[in-house]
Amino acid sequence: VDERPDQAGRNETHRTVKVLLVHAHPVPQSFNGALTGVALKTLTEAGHDVAVSDLYAMRFTATASAEDFSDRLDPDCFRLDREQTHAHENGSTAAEIAAEQAKLARADLLVLQYPMWWFGRVLTRGFAYLPGRKYDTGLLRGKVAVVSVTTGTSADTYAPDGIDGAIADILWPVHNGVLRYCGFAVAEPFVTHMPGRITATERATQLDRWAECLRGIADRPRLFFRPREDYGRDERLRPSVRARSGFQHNG
Amino acid sequence: VDERPDQAGRNETHRTVKVLLVHAHPVPQSFNGALTGVALKTLTEAGHDVAVSDLYAMRFTATASAEDFSDRLDPDCFRLDREQTHAHENGSTAAEIAAEQAKLARADLLVLQYPMWWFGRVLTRGFAYLPGRKYDTGLLRGKVAVVSVTTGTSADTYAPDGIDGAIADILWPVHNGVLRYCGFAVAEPFVTHMPGRITATERATQLDRWAECLRGIADRPRLFFRPREDYGRDERLRPSVRARSGFQHNG
Repeated sequence: VDERPDQAGRNETHRTVKVLLVHAHPVPQSFNGALTGVALKTLTEAGHDVAVSDLYAMRFTATASAEDFSDRLDPDCFRLDREQTHAHENGSTAAEIAAEQAKLARADLLVLQYPMWWFGRVLTRGFAYLPGRKYDTGLLRGKVAVVSVTTGTSADTYAPDGIDGAIADILWPVHNGVLRYCGFAVAEPFVTHMPGRITATERATQLDRWAECLRGIADRPRLFFRPREDYGRDERLRPSVRARSGFQHNG
Repeated sequence: VDERPDQAGRNETHRTVKVLLVHAHPVPQSFNGALTGVALKTLTEAGHDVAVSDLYAMRFTATASAEDFSDRLDPDCFRLDREQTHAHENGSTAAEIAAEQAKLARADLLVLQYPMWWFGRVLTRGFAYLPGRKYDTGLLRGKVAVVSVTTGTSADTYAPDGIDGAIADILWPVHNGVLRYCGFAVAEPFVTHMPGRITATERATQLDRWAECLRGIADRPRLFFRPREDYGRDERLRPSVRARSGFQHNG
């Protein structure tokens, strides 16, 4: 916890704060809906200026894609970061995005309200997991999964002491929370750093490494997850069991 | 790394493996496209049976919503987990989802291929960050953000020794990778566990706590992030600097 002052609001509690509430839940009568309702009421009553972006109600598209860009820097090959910068510099950002950016630009305080929904549309309850059928006994037990991910920044930034944090930890929610939860054995991930910056030779070498990884997938080391019996009924590690992933840690 | 054998493939390298490649990148000529191309070629040449789900090409909707459910268990209040189970049990899962589930059900090996894209559609390069304008100097510097998240499982499961891992770590990619990267000061998150299982009194108390949190947001403790000067030019912590978040760790 950082006790240093920051720019927005501290020791300025009497000024009007501009707030943007971003709400991502499809059901108004849900608890998430109630939390956003309380936030709107509380902050409005405190005299603040509150805008709401109700993403489901707006049918806001979550996925970035080439369709957002009408005035393309490079019509032949879509590179998201370059097109974003180009659109911003030329005022051609899609209206739906520009409207959200305008709300965010004027806000002093951003509140994100959402449920921790891990599984998207396909790994559904009943198909991929059920009460008592998760982790070791998840319904997709017997299958292997491997994540191949590319990054925009260097391997250094994803080192354990890098500014992004360790790549294994960044992927933990996918590896443990999604794949392992549904019963998959999970092979070590295959990571390519900054593919946009590498030479043709490095690119070919990396693609060869990927082919080799896949040919040897049966023998590729699996990530370690504590088995069910290492957890108590409360789903916490038993006192005698040492946390082994960097992500979990003992008291 | 777990050296134990698992069910799919080890010591059975000569049988045909059924593979599902899930590819999430909009541009065929991207490096992600090349990786998926290599995977398809390598695994096919090895005699395996490979299916591909190219999510952008399929225009696959990523977001779970009530629109996926035509035969509703409860038409008045949408609860995702219950509707998923109901649809699965009644064979009324939406065709687009059922098709992906069928591909996954027959697969021995799942390969996920995607770029680490942190920022979605709104926090664009140029608007929210630029080279040399990130973290401490991100373009949204001066703003405060707070995440309010609900969970489907207990506080125990999100304890540091819980089966999901510490909630602070689960949220690190959002807190550090998205919000802090763009320059926000980040207040401690507000977490509600299992709102579907709590009593009306507990619900009212929790909503009051949220109102109190928001009224006091100017003084709510901020998460600690190492300042820029604690990192070297390689964006790793300088050797003399101790990692302070649970997520980063020194050699």
